[in-house]
Amino acid sequence: MAALTDPDLLFAAEGRQLSLARALYAGVKDLPIVSPHGHTDPRWYALDEPFPDPAQLLIVPDHYILRMLFSQGVRLEELGVATLDGSLAETDGRAIWRRFAAHYYLFRGTPTRLWLDHVLEHLFGIAEPLTTATADRCYDTIATLLQRDDYRPRALFERFNIEVIATTEGALDDLEWHRTIRDSGWSGRVVTAYRPDAVVDPDFEGFASNLDRLGEITGCDTGNWAGYIEAHRKRRAYFKAFGATSSDHGHPTAETANLSDAAAEELFNRIRRGSEDGRERKLFRAQMLTEMAKMSRDDGLVMQIHPGSWRNHSPSVFRKFGRDKGFDIPTRTDYVTALKPLLDCVGLERDLAIILFTLDETSYARELAPLAGVYPALKLGPAWWFHDSPEGMRRFREMTTETAGFYNTVGFNDDTRAFPSIPARHDVARRVDCAFLARLVAEHRLREDEAHELAGELAYTLAKKAYRL
Amino acid sequence: MAALTDPDLLFAAEGRQLSLARALYAGVKDLPIVSPHGHTDPRWYALDEPFPDPAQLLIVPDHYILRMLFSQGVRLEELGVATLDGSLAETDGRAIWRRFAAHYYLFRGTPTRLWLDHVLEHLFGIAEPLTTATADRCYDTIATLLQRDDYRPRALFERFNIEVIATTEGALDDLEWHRTIRDSGWSGRVVTAYRPDAVVDPDFEGFASNLDRLGEITGCDTGNWAGYIEAHRKRRAYFKAFGATSSDHGHPTAETANLSDAAAEELFNRIRRGSEDGRERKLFRAQMLTEMAKMSRDDGLVMQIHPGSWRNHSPSVFRKFGRDKGFDIPTRTDYVTALKPLLDCVGLERDLAIILFTLDETSYARELAPLAGVYPALKLGPAWWFHDSPEGMRRFREMTTETAGFYNTVGFNDDTRAFPSIPARHDVARRVDCAFLARLVAEHRLREDEAHELAGELAYTLAKKAYRL
Amino acid sequence: MAALTDPDLLFAAEGRQLSLARALYAGVKDLPIVSPHGHTDPRWYALDEPFPDPAQLLIVPDHYILRMLFSQGVRLEELGVATLDGSLAETDGRAIWRRFAAHYYLFRGTPTRLWLDHVLEHLFGIAEPLTTATADRCYDTIATLLQRDDYRPRALFERFNIEVIATTEGALDDLEWHRTIRDSGWSGRVVTAYRPDAVVDPDFEGFASNLDRLGEITGCDTGNWAGYIEAHRKRRAYFKAFGATSSDHGHPTAETANLSDAAAEELFNRIRRGSEDGRERKLFRAQMLTEMAKMSRDDGLVMQIHPGSWRNHSPSVFRKFGRDKGFDIPTRTDYVTALKPLLDCVGLERDLAIILFTLDETSYARELAPLAGVYPALKLGPAWWFHDSPEGMRRFREMTTETAGFYNTVGFNDDTRAFPSIPARHDVARRVDCAFLARLVAEHRLREDEAHELAGELAYTLAKKAYRL
Repeated sequence: MAALTDPDLLFAAEGRQLSLARALYAGVKDLPIVSPHGHTDPRWYALDEPFPDPAQLLIVPDHYILRMLFSQGVRLEELGVATLDGSLAETDGRAIWRRFAAHYYLFRGTPTRLWLDHVLEHLFGIAEPLTTATADRCYDTIATLLQRDDYRPRALFERFNIEVIATTEGALDDLEWHRTIRDSGWSGRVVTAYRPDAVVDPDFEGFASNLDRLGEITGCDTGNWAGYIEAHRKRRAYFKAFGATSSDHGHPTAETANLSDAAAEELFNRIRRGSEDGRERKLFRAQMLTEMAKMSRDDGLVMQIHPGSWRNHSPSVFRKFGRDKGFDIPTRTDYVTALKPLLDCVGLERDLAIILFTLDETSYARELAPLAGVYPALKLGPAWWFHDSPEGMRRFREMTTETAGFYNTVGFNDDTRAFPSIPARHDVARRVDCAFLARLVAEHRLREDEAHELAGELAYTLAKKAYRL
Repeated sequence: MAALTDPDLLFAAEGRQLSLARALYAGVKDLPIVSPHGHTDPRWYALDEPFPDPAQLLIVPDHYILRMLFSQGVRLEELGVATLDGSLAETDGRAIWRRFAAHYYLFRGTPTRLWLDHVLEHLFGIAEPLTTATADRCYDTIATLLQRDDYRPRALFERFNIEVIATTEGALDDLEWHRTIRDSGWSGRVVTAYRPDAVVDPDFEGFASNLDRLGEITGCDTGNWAGYIEAHRKRRAYFKAFGATSSDHGHPTAETANLSDAAAEELFNRIRRGSEDGRERKLFRAQMLTEMAKMSRDDGLVMQIHPGSWRNHSPSVFRKFGRDKGFDIPTRTDYVTALKPLLDCVGLERDLAIILFTLDETSYARELAPLAGVYPALKLGPAWWFHDSPEGMRRFREMTTETAGFYNTVGFNDDTRAFPSIPARHDVARRVDCAFLARLVAEHRLREDEAHELAGELAYTLAKKAYRL
Repeated sequence: MAALTDPDLLFAAEGRQLSLARALYAGVKDLPIVSPHGHTDPRWYALDEPFPDPAQLLIVPDHYILRMLFSQGVRLEELGVATLDGSLAETDGRAIWRRFAAHYYLFRGTPTRLWLDHVLEHLFGIAEPLTTATADRCYDTIATLLQRDDYRPRALFERFNIEVIATTEGALDDLEWHRTIRDSGWSGRVVTAYRPDAVVDPDFEGFASNLDRLGEITGCDTGNWAGYIEAHRKRRAYFKAFGATSSDHGHPTAETANLSDAAAEELFNRIRRGSEDGRERKLFRAQMLTEMAKMSRDDGLVMQIHPGSWRNHSPSVFRKFGRDKGFDIPTRTDYVTALKPLLDCVGLERDLAIILFTLDETSYARELAPLAGVYPALKLGPAWWFHDSPEGMRRFREMTTETAGFYNTVGFNDDTRAFPSIPARHDVARRVDCAFLARLVAEHRLREDEAHELAGELAYTLAKKAYRL
């Protein structure tokens, strides 16, 4: 039976570009995985329990899959997504799997297809295309394997050759699972990252009580600006104690501010009293990005800014199913104006690292590469989310390299909840980068020895360095 | 004498991509043409008279040609374009044709060149490049053929293997030519589409009297909101009786609104009294998109939204020559914010079909693919107008497929007035799609059997399904 | 020892695209250089003194190099950039050169690498890659050659086969060096271009005294609008006497205005009195673009508009080091709305030539190609600055050709201060264009004879025609 995935996946069809890509890839395919930004659940590594059934593992939590099937008329309930009010959702994993298999053709040409075929073949040893006809056989194979000890989280972590993985936790999280991992004596390196949305965004649900809670946890008086800032410093230190080397900031825009201390304090007080308006909430978020950048300058956490997603675009779906159901839509994002206050404050710092991401590819060549190509504090995160795809990564390289070079980028982030797909995602990224480098060599824009060095940097070294891992 | 067009037009130069593209194209090149959106004149099919001279057929009505020649200093009068005040324009078809031939080199690298060479060779049997030296011979050949019965509209329709073609008529049109076609007993399938600009846009010339006329035609009282809405429903039903399966909306922006019935009524009343301002006219257009979407939900007409063209950018040219003379310029277009009111209202409907077009390619990956990749009601129209071109179509696939897949797109629209070029336009689209699929297969991102299936879908099936034809 | 640069640089790796590109390039590689827009120093050609040491010639004045090294933590002082307050900067050319060599790997994948390797090999006969190990040898080779008579500016000008080069001078410049060149009897053709920023932008440093000075030079009363306009006319005539065929306008945006004479006069008076606000300063700049276009219509100077750069984005760097240190960042730029007032006034003039540039590639297909593809007065400048690169030029052709054709573009501008790199820059542009044309021929979109003709137009003829040189 032929393999689901081809050894030359994503390379040129023939000729010198193909042979170069193969040679470059051979040098990087077995490098350890550094996963500096992602959303896997630390509980998995802490408890090391078997993963649930195939559908619960591979379908239900994957918003890439949910969105495509929903767009073609499949109801989320039919895919096992629970409604918030507890009304009926499909619980039969096999039924969900069959539904998915029947619609798998929808993913032709998408990265989901590449990732899943890779997982089916390389993790579960399946060699026949997933269709209605093969759905049950496929399901059984996976379900059986998931019961085996060598398919538990830690075993897979090791089999995947993960050198280090970062999860992301909210500022109020007690990092219990990270503590469990640390105390277990297991050698796998799992670190956290500081995600303070719930305590920097006045529009976040429960913001006021979140600040109270932040005060309790830290022993700081979050009723005033100085105490609030101090509380952040303490939490960041706590996160660092569990391996964190970065913070993560998912604002709607990249807007920053650089208020005087007095003005920041006054703004905080208004917000704490609940007497602020929408403009002030926005300004507060903007100011907090600069505050976080200053803290990063001081404590060395790498700062990641992920702006430009309009979360929960459909209020009906949000009300019925909650967050992360595929209804986050990118928006046009400005960086040159938005980041200026922050950059005026700390942009020239050589020891600060701020990694910028975008969902608006028009900013690559026009804004992000020129900014990262001159400000020492800035680096470019990889092609993100909707652009974590062969064409998206290719456009990223084509539109950033000539102005920012390779060395102002930071390697690959898988950014995923989908643990089994991590090797597949890194494999796609390594292949696309090797194919890009092969093109540069074939066009005599780069020497072959340089391309080999770069392939290793893009696959492994840059991520380690940029994230200080 | 060598052919004007090559059998491998638009395919890779050699190797596996070429052989794959050839194989895919072989499977679709003879499929019938489904033309679900266009602007040919139903009078042609109704009366079946010979087409006029070569220049009147191929040059004078083609705004792609007029704009390029005008940009290089040729006056529109010299190309036979009549001024509104009746001052002198060239009437000698041969003189116009010679002028065009002398400037044909300007079209190198443009789709006009591909289309016209295809028409010259495949429709008129011409095998020598069009130049000053060959202009007269070429003109004579075409002029002679146009007199033959087998070059009349119906004969060409049949020769072109058109399964169905849609024209576009204004809401006040009596559809006389469609009636003539229907009553003629001819087997050709020509349907209309509902284009209500003149009765939904308060800025349209004669808007108030257009509404009066709408009332007369339908027997509804268009002096009030309920009667006005009812009048639309009746006209849509009338259009459906002449085969319409879609409506077409060419607003300056994609802005929509979702007013309460009372607010919509109040807005309509202000506009009907002529006491509205510019903001309210805009709001009315926005509200009417949502109203039309609701009607589409009810009556099943597929809704097409074509936003973002600044019509008649040059007031001098507009005053002298009127509309459609090449001075429509694309503008930056927002969808994520603009469509939200409409989507909040009907975006989750699984039986509603709204097809979005754009002249702003930056929206493909950032907005349109994410929206169409999750909202059941949305689909993506093909690369449009300035982007109805090999590079434009390639970018469309590269920037939409990974997020929206192929199945949230709707095949090809020729969108043309230029009847003789319809096979050429579909041929270019089929070739570009086959070349794209060939690349995916060559890069092992798609299996060959899937590519064959997709080639047929993109060339034929998706358009039929999406437009319910 | 192998060459640093490959004869097939930037061509396809093999097959028909490679052989076509080679053939096309063979026909244009030795064409004279027409450099219609640049920033070399006319003093060089006037005095014909030896160039300074390698670092002062190739590193210190190159903002592409400064920005990349600064982004990776190298201080500008270490690269020999003098601070405005005269504090210490590196003055040892060899030390600067070694620092650069140690960081040369940062430029992998950038055009700087291509240009510099070309200069090292073709101008200085160096065949080994620049690294820390080879830095001294390389420095010595260059330093020695720079002392030779055949490496002086005029000898290089002739060796480079420059048919004509334009420099750019401010409106108040006395053109002394151009006079010296003219009086020297040297046959090299060096012309100036009229750059009036200092006397059209109220935000320019010393604007009021600049206007006084403009009055003194011209004998016009620049205290009133009529005199001010007349002064521009006189200066333009003066520049024309020194060969100028163009003016150059570097506004922050493309905004234009078309005020009545009375309103323009009133605006000028307010500004002259210093009683204007920011909005009026912006309006004045906008109006002056239209005034300059009208003067171009009258005196035949080709008008170049270079909008969209946010100059000196970092105030700290600007305060410490001044202008042009790599901190100019592109911004999103609108043309369709911004240019309308100017176009309404003079856009249909067939004898006027306005060349548009952009740093915002999103405008190529959406705005610039549609505008230049219909307005007789408009042409498109080449891919500019950050986009003067292989990928940038390729995108330019891919996104403009199908709508505007080749003949609404104007060939290549090197736009550089870096005299030794001029042949390298033109070589890269010629290669990219030949590779693009080769693709069109290989895909049967263009005949080979047409591609040969176009290769010559893009490399040479279009620039001569468009700039009236």
